[in-house]
Amino acid sequence: MAKEITPRSENYSQWYNDLVVKAGLAENSAVRGCMVIKPYGYAIWEKMQHQLDKMFKETGHQNAYFPLFIPKSFLSREAEHVEGFAKECAVVTHHRLMTDPNGNGVVVDPDAKLEEELIVRPTSETIIWNTYKNWISSYRDLPILVNQWANVVRWEMRTRLFLRTAEFLWQEGHTAHATKEEALEEATKMVNVYADFARNYMAIPVIVGEKTESERFAGAITTLCIEAMMQDGKALQAGTSHFLGQNFAKAFDVKYQTNEGGLEYVWASSWGVSTRLMGALIMAHGDDNGLVLPPNLAPIQVVMVPIFNKPEQLEAVLAKMKEIKEELVKKGVSVKIDDRDNLRSGFKFAEWELKGVPVRVAIGPRDLENNTVELARRDTLTKESTSADSAPERIVSLLDEIEKNIYQKALSFRDSHIWKVDSWEEFKTKIEEGGFLLCHWDGTSETEEKIKEETKATIRCIPFDSCVCQEEGKCIYSGKPSHRRVLFAKAY
Amino acid sequence: MAKEITPRSENYSQWYNDLVVKAGLAENSAVRGCMVIKPYGYAIWEKMQHQLDKMFKETGHQNAYFPLFIPKSFLSREAEHVEGFAKECAVVTHHRLMTDPNGNGVVVDPDAKLEEELIVRPTSETIIWNTYKNWISSYRDLPILVNQWANVVRWEMRTRLFLRTAEFLWQEGHTAHATKEEALEEATKMVNVYADFARNYMAIPVIVGEKTESERFAGAITTLCIEAMMQDGKALQAGTSHFLGQNFAKAFDVKYQTNEGGLEYVWASSWGVSTRLMGALIMAHGDDNGLVLPPNLAPIQVVMVPIFNKPEQLEAVLAKMKEIKEELVKKGVSVKIDDRDNLRSGFKFAEWELKGVPVRVAIGPRDLENNTVELARRDTLTKESTSADSAPERIVSLLDEIEKNIYQKALSFRDSHIWKVDSWEEFKTKIEEGGFLLCHWDGTSETEEKIKEETKATIRCIPFDSCVCQEEGKCIYSGKPSHRRVLFAKAY
Repeated sequence: MAKEITPRSENYSQWYNDLVVKAGLAENSAVRGCMVIKPYGYAIWEKMQHQLDKMFKETGHQNAYFPLFIPKSFLSREAEHVEGFAKECAVVTHHRLMTDPNGNGVVVDPDAKLEEELIVRPTSETIIWNTYKNWISSYRDLPILVNQWANVVRWEMRTRLFLRTAEFLWQEGHTAHATKEEALEEATKMVNVYADFARNYMAIPVIVGEKTESERFAGAITTLCIEAMMQDGKALQAGTSHFLGQNFAKAFDVKYQTNEGGLEYVWASSWGVSTRLMGALIMAHGDDNGLVLPPNLAPIQVVMVPIFNKPEQLEAVLAKMKEIKEELVKKGVSVKIDDRDNLRSGFKFAEWELKGVPVRVAIGPRDLENNTVELARRDTLTKESTSADSAPERIVSLLDEIEKNIYQKALSFRDSHIWKVDSWEEFKTKIEEGGFLLCHWDGTSETEEKIKEETKATIRCIPFDSCVCQEEGKCIYSGKPSHRRVLFAKAY
Repeated sequence: MAKEITPRSENYSQWYNDLVVKAGLAENSAVRGCMVIKPYGYAIWEKMQHQLDKMFKETGHQNAYFPLFIPKSFLSREAEHVEGFAKECAVVTHHRLMTDPNGNGVVVDPDAKLEEELIVRPTSETIIWNTYKNWISSYRDLPILVNQWANVVRWEMRTRLFLRTAEFLWQEGHTAHATKEEALEEATKMVNVYADFARNYMAIPVIVGEKTESERFAGAITTLCIEAMMQDGKALQAGTSHFLGQNFAKAFDVKYQTNEGGLEYVWASSWGVSTRLMGALIMAHGDDNGLVLPPNLAPIQVVMVPIFNKPEQLEAVLAKMKEIKEELVKKGVSVKIDDRDNLRSGFKFAEWELKGVPVRVAIGPRDLENNTVELARRDTLTKESTSADSAPERIVSLLDEIEKNIYQKALSFRDSHIWKVDSWEEFKTKIEEGGFLLCHWDGTSETEEKIKEETKATIRCIPFDSCVCQEEGKCIYSGKPSHRRVLFAKAY
């Protein structure tokens, strides 16, 4: 089974698609650009959701739900916002079908045309700020700290499973504040929540920073982001958090009475991560045998495969497995016993490797005699034999080791693929090899655009990490003076 | 605050709307028929989701996600299905907006017309069975037990918050089986899961039964349902589970190879509950002071309101409250301390009553002296004083009592509003008073339709409960022979 996966060295992009489809994570649907998220893929997304939701609630946020549809006129209220989203909108124009008078099934009923077209939300700032107008009148109504789990649609022309799909699932936080400082603080807090989640659950070392003007969210004053490195050295933007200033408050006339009796526009932030995180998870850790899931997000953390020749052996092996499983479940570990009787154990090994299960336990008749079990690690593909009695404890510590090791591996990879580059010739060579380049830049969109045209590299962010980046130098392209390095890479 | 609620006796329908809006559950949005579910309402829905999801997983189901859009041609494949949904569809016809050449903001770009229109899913049988075609080839691929949490759109002309909205949130289970018996068993199992959930979490005594042909889901062979009685004696369909036979397998050509090597069409079930459950919860238990939430679904189970005159009293009271809260949290109880300093305690009492919090704890300076606390029950509006030391324990048992009492109250109400009626004259009188009527029916859609025309009553279901209904008699309307009673009511 795993043999059908294209090796990364041969074709990284095909390797990714193979993994997504063959590990049963997602597939393309009959609707252009829309995917079906299959049970195994959805189970990983659910674990992500569960943890993020917990972190949002711990930071004081509540969930709510706003309409799927946005009146066309709402989009136009914020000039940059409509500019950013108008070209990729699914537009609802009618509310009824009818039997085709010519006998060709059903057709759109021309009498059911909507007075105003509705846009399937590409993001919800407009409909939410139109709602907040009724929720906010005094400083006592602030802050509003709301998050929404929802589907959104952006009519992308070139789509790829998880990475860029017409419909995707995400969460979008939308907060309202009395002061600029508070809104900025919120945007910063949430990008750090994302970084924490990426590092400690996805085992991905991300770089936190600020977007340049040209890469900003349409309607934001400041966009903060986390950027992850994939195994081909390309960057993947894994989450963004925006300080929106008073742009949407002004567009929807949302003011509040201050403690002193004045009237002010409200300040805003919004922030989101999506099923794109699934793509990051796959590409950051997978190998030529399949997925490598960090234990913290693996739907099945331990799989047990019985080894046997005769049915009575199977029975004894399964009894031992159930015993160990029970201990593990008590410790909060999710375990699957693969007792399918029509498949060889070698086939099962390959299948669970493909699916990235962190720990595989094999028990055969000889293990029963010796009171041992065989533990196999997905991350290193190494095996060890351990006493059956101490197996539960060993597995728990192994899961912890694996989580840390996957992170360390990704961190070492990233650190060995980041370079400070100071010559344009070197830039052009290095960027082709893949990796992140820390370079000086003159701060203009023109230079940024030219670099993109010539090399396809973009400024992923202006990293927060000042000790690495804060130094005097000259722009890699124009030679003009610069006070700090920024992060260049080709990106997904 | 609570005084603004219209009493039930004056206008039941207005009372409902008042509760939904004033308790902060939901409100109408700028988009016709689409609601905003506010944080407090969404928190209740999350508790419902969480419990249902647990029950689905315990019965072997996995979650997945399918596209929001359905190609128009898919709907037409199953004749009854398209007939049932074509008239209330949101239709996407274009995928881009453009700047209006006449300068009026943005308009639909006529060049971005879709080749085939897309329907925003009103339900997902068609897109899912088109997907299952690729998932199923052998009996080894069956059963498929999949559920989806999603938003759906049905373009209803007359909408009411939670009860009937153009967009609503729901879950839809879609299962595939090798045999008719297994699919039927699944449909029955899931309607019973719904009944269990309604009784033990929503504290609503539901009647389980089968729909008549005219009330069936469009495309189903059999529709099972749970029906709840609201306080005005009307029925609310709270969940449905369908045996779909091979209708969708035939429409999408989904066959499997049997164990014996034959080729058969696959059998199907589907089942769903929606945010409509919120409406049932509100109408089944609320009173003229506001919501009455069953503890099992209350986002805040206990609210603590400090009583004080001087700031130093507040401090001591809050310290005691935190102590008790900590104990309660350990026992898994969700507690809120209402320490807002700009509101009188009377105002707070009314607000938490409006929001239906099951138990209110008040502590004042005199309580501190006596080491007591005052506990108030939302369901009975009674108070008791108890020792501060035993308060946590007492509150836990009180929550259990309240859950049971709310159920019992709803059950008594229902039982005192169900009548066996055998004369048409009595039927017409009783149905106007509100309540459920168990009557004989001749089994024809014609009679059912005539009764509906004359009285607005419909057959809610043919109850499973055979000891109550299985008896010989004559149809209430036509006088023709009948072998069992069915349940008539006016319905939401």
